[in-house]
Amino acid sequence: MIETPYLLFLGDAPDQLSAKVAQGIKDWRPENAVGQYRMEGCKADVGLKDMSFEEAKAAGAKTVVIGVANRGGYISKQWRAVLVQAIEAGFDLASGLHNLLRDEGELLAAAQVHGCTLHDVRVPTDAYPIATGVKRTGKRVLAVGTDCSAGKMYTALALDAAMRERGMKSTFRATGQTGILITGSGVPLDAVIADFMAGSVEYLTPDNEDDHWDVIEGQGSIFHVSYSGVTLALIHGGQPDALILCHEPTRKHMRGLPDYAVPSIESVRDITLQLAKVANPACKVVGVSINTQHLGEAEATAYCEEVEARLGLPTVDPFRHGAERLADALEAL
Amino acid sequence: MIETPYLLFLGDAPDQLSAKVAQGIKDWRPENAVGQYRMEGCKADVGLKDMSFEEAKAAGAKTVVIGVANRGGYISKQWRAVLVQAIEAGFDLASGLHNLLRDEGELLAAAQVHGCTLHDVRVPTDAYPIATGVKRTGKRVLAVGTDCSAGKMYTALALDAAMRERGMKSTFRATGQTGILITGSGVPLDAVIADFMAGSVEYLTPDNEDDHWDVIEGQGSIFHVSYSGVTLALIHGGQPDALILCHEPTRKHMRGLPDYAVPSIESVRDITLQLAKVANPACKVVGVSINTQHLGEAEATAYCEEVEARLGLPTVDPFRHGAERLADALEAL
Repeated sequence: MIETPYLLFLGDAPDQLSAKVAQGIKDWRPENAVGQYRMEGCKADVGLKDMSFEEAKAAGAKTVVIGVANRGGYISKQWRAVLVQAIEAGFDLASGLHNLLRDEGELLAAAQVHGCTLHDVRVPTDAYPIATGVKRTGKRVLAVGTDCSAGKMYTALALDAAMRERGMKSTFRATGQTGILITGSGVPLDAVIADFMAGSVEYLTPDNEDDHWDVIEGQGSIFHVSYSGVTLALIHGGQPDALILCHEPTRKHMRGLPDYAVPSIESVRDITLQLAKVANPACKVVGVSINTQHLGEAEATAYCEEVEARLGLPTVDPFRHGAERLADALEAL
Repeated sequence: MIETPYLLFLGDAPDQLSAKVAQGIKDWRPENAVGQYRMEGCKADVGLKDMSFEEAKAAGAKTVVIGVANRGGYISKQWRAVLVQAIEAGFDLASGLHNLLRDEGELLAAAQVHGCTLHDVRVPTDAYPIATGVKRTGKRVLAVGTDCSAGKMYTALALDAAMRERGMKSTFRATGQTGILITGSGVPLDAVIADFMAGSVEYLTPDNEDDHWDVIEGQGSIFHVSYSGVTLALIHGGQPDALILCHEPTRKHMRGLPDYAVPSIESVRDITLQLAKVANPACKVVGVSINTQHLGEAEATAYCEEVEARLGLPTVDPFRHGAERLADALEAL
């Protein structure tokens, strides 16, 4: 639906974490990104060649993808001016921000003049039902985190890849803008109307073959007061058979909430499992995924070993060590 | 904002519970309702005089309020034809359904021709922020339920009335269409975009005097898989100091979910309190509210006494016995 390859727009991202959309595309579909575009003051870098719009055009890019998430999802004046230049250079735009491209008069006008398409992948495209809670066939695994941005999407993408690699039936189910930009479909869960959240997750993960796994991308955290409702809708709408606990061990506090400490992995395990059993009494926690990007190699291994011993669950960083042991755990289930 | 008095439209309500909007208005603002309008097959009755549009007009009614909630909130063809007649008779319409009056071409056209106003109270009227989790001044009490329609709104309205009666500072904070229709303001939480749910609750219950209580209307249940995400947004956005547990003891299964058993009051107490402490570590469960409408007088009293002994918390049906003991518990906090 969105024309590839992309030029990844990082804007004036305040930190590396805000560029997780661009990083995800670069890591999981590197063939789809020719370079990155950064504005003055940009503090993110996804390791692609910095390009002007002219250079990206010459390199074959078709779409400028907004690869950075603002808190609240606003399009600033500064961005708007640059995005108009992108349209004038002949690019389509794709974005997962709350603030829609199509709602920006300047962008819409420029797009009409230059015949380019504005893709707002965050906008729900279907009328979702209210959740029925009826037990579905097939299996589902959900990634849940101690915090936002703890590696849930990476874990799900890596697990899906590892399962398919060994011939298991698996589908990655995107619930956020990055996942949707990567896979081309999914439910933009944080933009769904409250009453239909759980129903949209049921819709995303329908009846399937008995040995098929939906690998559901998680959102937020049960302990993140801004987004916990979205997380619970995933747990109850997804009726997972298996949970993977995701944790980033260097976080000083909950993302965006300086007054809130990051909970222990055990706390998340206990309360999430209790909640998950409401929808699926057979649900089990099968593994732990540690995001060790801020740890050295030895530290990362030691940390995973320590958690594995403490929780008695296979513990890996799927990005660093692969997701094979998590796939093993699901295969054994 | 909405002109009173009302004629309460019950449509072809399949059961009494579906008419909780009309029942709420009748119970809490009886002076605002001159009668009820029922279609063929209607199984609800709120105990008001059945009136034709002509009779209601003669009795002074200004607005026809949709007093019945469909699953999913749709406006049927049958309803539409009758509502056009209401407009032709000169009434404004007010509704809290998901499916908006203003989106029905026939209703909109008739309203324009006859100069009447369509009030869709469910539509969020403000741009809510993302929740910050910052501790607010003033106190908050939230009603949480073992199931939907367990008496949370009644409990909050009765508690607010009892507190004001004794000179405590209290404001009922509506989070659903009935509450909004009754009080004229609030947040239509189930229609808010997922990411902004908790933020809308923070917005609804801002900083206040230290001895002021916001009495927050609850929604759904942590154990109701269709709506649990909305409930958790209330718990985390409301950062309540006190929780009241609401229960309807004759329910055979979760409302709308025949495969799901109603949880024990203890289960709801334990998991809700754990979740509430994330946002407010000082949160306490202070009382239990039993909806005894399907029990006889002796049974109702015996049931409340049994729960009170079991949980060690003041237990009343606020509609039957008054909310004084719940107000006592808050005053003592």
